[in-house]
Amino acid sequence: MRIVLDAIGGDHAPHETVKGAVQAARTLGCTVLLVGPEAQITEELHKHHTRGLDLQVIDAPEVIGMDEHPAHAVRRKTHSSHIVGLRMVRDGKADAFVSAGHSGASMAGALLILGRLPGVERPALGTILPTGKNPPPLLLDVGANTDCKPEYLFQFAQMGSIYAERMLGVDHPRIALLANGEEQSKGDRRVQEAHLLLLESNLRFMGNVEPKDLMTSHDYDVVVTDGFIGNLMLKMGEATVSLIASTGKNSILRNLLPRLLLGMAPTAALAALPGKGRWRALAGALLGGAGLVGASLYPLLKMRSQMDYRSYGGVPLLGVKGVVVIGHGKSDAVAIGSAIQRAWETVQSHTVQTIAEAVSATSVPRPPRAPRVPVQVSE
Amino acid sequence: MRIVLDAIGGDHAPHETVKGAVQAARTLGCTVLLVGPEAQITEELHKHHTRGLDLQVIDAPEVIGMDEHPAHAVRRKTHSSHIVGLRMVRDGKADAFVSAGHSGASMAGALLILGRLPGVERPALGTILPTGKNPPPLLLDVGANTDCKPEYLFQFAQMGSIYAERMLGVDHPRIALLANGEEQSKGDRRVQEAHLLLLESNLRFMGNVEPKDLMTSHDYDVVVTDGFIGNLMLKMGEATVSLIASTGKNSILRNLLPRLLLGMAPTAALAALPGKGRWRALAGALLGGAGLVGASLYPLLKMRSQMDYRSYGGVPLLGVKGVVVIGHGKSDAVAIGSAIQRAWETVQSHTVQTIAEAVSATSVPRPPRAPRVPVQVSE
Repeated sequence: MRIVLDAIGGDHAPHETVKGAVQAARTLGCTVLLVGPEAQITEELHKHHTRGLDLQVIDAPEVIGMDEHPAHAVRRKTHSSHIVGLRMVRDGKADAFVSAGHSGASMAGALLILGRLPGVERPALGTILPTGKNPPPLLLDVGANTDCKPEYLFQFAQMGSIYAERMLGVDHPRIALLANGEEQSKGDRRVQEAHLLLLESNLRFMGNVEPKDLMTSHDYDVVVTDGFIGNLMLKMGEATVSLIASTGKNSILRNLLPRLLLGMAPTAALAALPGKGRWRALAGALLGGAGLVGASLYPLLKMRSQMDYRSYGGVPLLGVKGVVVIGHGKSDAVAIGSAIQRAWETVQSHTVQTIAEAVSATSVPRPPRAPRVPVQVSE
Repeated sequence: MRIVLDAIGGDHAPHETVKGAVQAARTLGCTVLLVGPEAQITEELHKHHTRGLDLQVIDAPEVIGMDEHPAHAVRRKTHSSHIVGLRMVRDGKADAFVSAGHSGASMAGALLILGRLPGVERPALGTILPTGKNPPPLLLDVGANTDCKPEYLFQFAQMGSIYAERMLGVDHPRIALLANGEEQSKGDRRVQEAHLLLLESNLRFMGNVEPKDLMTSHDYDVVVTDGFIGNLMLKMGEATVSLIASTGKNSILRNLLPRLLLGMAPTAALAALPGKGRWRALAGALLGGAGLVGASLYPLLKMRSQMDYRSYGGVPLLGVKGVVVIGHGKSDAVAIGSAIQRAWETVQSHTVQTIAEAVSATSVPRPPRAPRVPVQVSE
């Protein structure tokens, strides 16, 4: 199997991308095609032991910057790693495309070069939610499309269900719609209409799910939402985690000295009593106390890493004619390696073919208009 | 001034609502009209010292349950606390309505009984974001309307700006639109069109704001979004905080013993050395260590209370003909007291009249169509 990696994409490229590619080639035994400015990638590759590994460098001299408009960039920069890499997939020279670079450019490029599967209205970007559950729930769309129609949401459910079955090992996955309440009347008009479509489908539709259950409930495997909302939700989750981590760290560090003194007070009193061993008592307390303070920072750091979206490798772009895995911009070598592995597994599992068959076999009905309710609010 | 309180609304009613009313009547020196089942409220009121306070019980025998559909409930239950209370405001017998009960019923009731201010397309529910900033930013709409048009978002900005000026003491408030990126091309079509409307308005529009800046930046006073998205964002924030708090607490408690032992190990070694004072050393370390472990739980609890939406009293429903303040369902007496105080301040500040004048003086232009961009995704 041949996986194309955008070797110049991501905040830590090409150092971490090349390192991740070497690791993946070794672990998976597959061919990794490194696309990017040839001299730079080759130089980076020479830092590694690559004997016996199938790593090839494909020249793509242009680079799409993070501040460029995706649709414009992919049309103009035809010698960029995105376009060169995706063309290889289209032309059958590679089986999958992986990039931790400009994700908008990856999606726009995939649409332009690979195109949509027949019958797919809009491709969707899925993401694995870092809830600690196993198997983890899939949320889609998290950014490929704003302004989704109910029919698109229906197809996201269909594609997500197949992905969960094939890739996450879920039997007959349970689907939910993201809304601000469980009742069928919740959500905006699009959600209400998609709700009706899903009720009538042969998917295992469980109803609406609220954010609080999204993170903790074990009752859903695939959660469907509009790309604008999904993207905002991910960002809100990340922002809240960051805010709490920094508030917590500051709070611990700010009060470190008074708290140390407070904790030491009884010990100091004990040491001040006349008799032998007072210095030993003080030293013992200091040692014990320091160990405990260090340990009190540990759960905070651990929690942060558990909720870190970076640690989940790549997420799939579903609905295009080929396997496309999009990594987080902050990916390190481990994340790149797992993104390549995810691409590898996606090819192996025939997920794209299964989606193509399912979509072409189902005609998406026009949604009935949901009944108009003047005020919809949840507690 | 006469404030109507829905004495039977909220998870802790009537115990906490009546207690909060007594406190508010004492602090503010205003009349508090307690609406609810008369016998029950009167009995509760007798538990308090109310001499010299102006507290009146108004009978409203019907109760709207939390699981009832808001629009249906307010039409059917005309003797409920919501409807009886709001009618008093409409008929000039009271100056403001406060409820911690079914918030959907409060909004539907306010629309039905008070109606919209002339020119207001849709009323909006604002909320104060618990960021620790002063003055705190106002986010609206957080649940009064799903399916907002760009013109509604424009009016939310207008109403929010006046509220921030009058009620939060912000001079010439800075407005932002919630989106998944700062660039003008981000957001869904409605956000892009509202962006254009706001750029051409005389409001102090700063552009788009992302979730990460929503919680930390000092560059915005009012953030505007659709009610469905705003409601989801609040819930996502709450869910993330809850998840982190429970994960953190579990993580601290689960590892308490091994961590205690680890922290004590050097001390134990010290105590095991031959010589005097070894027991004193051990006792000192245990005392010091226990103090520090207790203190390490403190920042977590503090953080949770800082981010607790309950502690912010009531939030305003802007755009209706009267002052309506909606409290959190979990309100205790303190929260009820501050909701009544917020209502009192809103009446004092003539916020509703100012909004009425501003809205009637501005005609909302039809939005130009935003340019269509195929793929819009942010990193």
